Amino acid sequence: MLGAGERIDDLLTDTGLRIIQSREVFSFSLDAVLLSRFANIPKNGGRIADLCSGNGVIPILLSGRTKAKIDAIEIQPRLADMARRSVELNGLQEQIQVLEQDLRTYPKVAGNGVYDAITVNPPYMPVMAGDHNENEHYAIARHEIHCTLEDLAQACCRLLRPGGKLSMVHRPARMLDILESLRRWKLEPKRIQFVHPHAGAEANMILIEATRDGKPDIRLLPPIMVYNDEGVQIV
Amino acid sequence: MLGAGERIDDLLTDTGLRIIQSREVFSFSLDAVLLSRFANIPKNGGRIADLCSGNGVIPILLSGRTKAKIDAIEIQPRLADMARRSVELNGLQEQIQVLEQDLRTYPKVAGNGVYDAITVNPPYMPVMAGDHNENEHYAIARHEIHCTLEDLAQACCRLLRPGGKLSMVHRPARMLDILESLRRWKLEPKRIQFVHPHAGAEANMILIEATRDGKPDIRLLPPIMVYNDEGVQIV
Repeated sequence: MLGAGERIDDLLTDTGLRIIQSREVFSFSLDAVLLSRFANIPKNGGRIADLCSGNGVIPILLSGRTKAKIDAIEIQPRLADMARRSVELNGLQEQIQVLEQDLRTYPKVAGNGVYDAITVNPPYMPVMAGDHNENEHYAIARHEIHCTLEDLAQACCRLLRPGGKLSMVHRPARMLDILESLRRWKLEPKRIQFVHPHAGAEANMILIEATRDGKPDIRLLPPIMVYNDEGVQIV
Repeated sequence: MLGAGERIDDLLTDTGLRIIQSREVFSFSLDAVLLSRFANIPKNGGRIADLCSGNGVIPILLSGRTKAKIDAIEIQPRLADMARRSVELNGLQEQIQVLEQDLRTYPKVAGNGVYDAITVNPPYMPVMAGDHNENEHYAIARHEIHCTLEDLAQACCRLLRPGGKLSMVHRPARMLDILESLRRWKLEPKRIQFVHPHAGAEANMILIEATRDGKPDIRLLPPIMVYNDEGVQIV
């Protein structure tokens, strides 16, 4: 079941969920965990898509919170394959389907307005930013090579039904670009939550929820502090 | 020195600053105090404008932090008069000038690019929102009757020199409108800080700094909690 360089990690959930990871291609991080807790998803049915799904950690974490069908959309064959094996490892084949798809063309495959909720932990950096000495798998996961904010907002606009919810995690430095892209594609930002390493530090993560065709009305949730004043991780 | 219904309040600063207030027309609040601490202003010289200045509380508080000349711009004659008397009360006539002006026309009077920094605690509510049974003074201070976000951003765009800083306090619910207006008028948001009543509560105030002709690059400062976990006010 495991390829070269792969390992199985416990997701530290009550229900014993596990995931196949590899240092070579992708490991999930706190971003994914916080997004799966933040996401506004239907509980008893409906359809959810997780875009830029990587090794499928978000659909697997969400499975503990919902009976909805979840489609994991991932463009990289090696990651989609890992995600598929992780789904099997957890016996979740009935609930989670891994689709090797490019989100820019996926709405033509799936159809318009078919999802009740979408989650996404997209690449954080513009294509030109930072160090490109990393391997291709990391480059695609980190940089907007196959998925700009505009690509993403456009895909979500098409895939979500009116009233459907998009939940995203990103870097605060990109907040203005994110808000502008979302509004341009009829996704009205409704809830924002910042994540700070500790109480005295600037935010290093932003969680955003937007509603397809929602009315303007935004709430700023209590901030999440990852470490308490004693340096103990509390999330 | 005091008109009918007016009183003198201590501003609780180390330097004994005081202010003339009146329940009938305007009283300052925590918003003004937090904005004067947050504002990025020149220390040893230069020119500052405080728009929508009300009874002049922000210029008076800023006087403790800077030697710059400060112009207090207020449209309501009664409030401008109170502000002028408060400036005299504190012996700050050399530093603070109160101008009874409409910010929509003030740039034609003052000229373009003449200020290094601007502070503003504007009306929070659109004209149509809420209860209009309040008196005219409160209505003008609370509702965007003489000053919409667009009016404000346009005035700041004209009044600030390139690189000059705008510091604003507002309600989080208006954040998207604020960010859009600022960017439309060449005021790039650079620092944001949210104020929460306590650690578990949603933000009820937002502090924003924007730079005239600044480069996109936003920082999300550590949040301010007004009360600690024991219910003691800590700001």
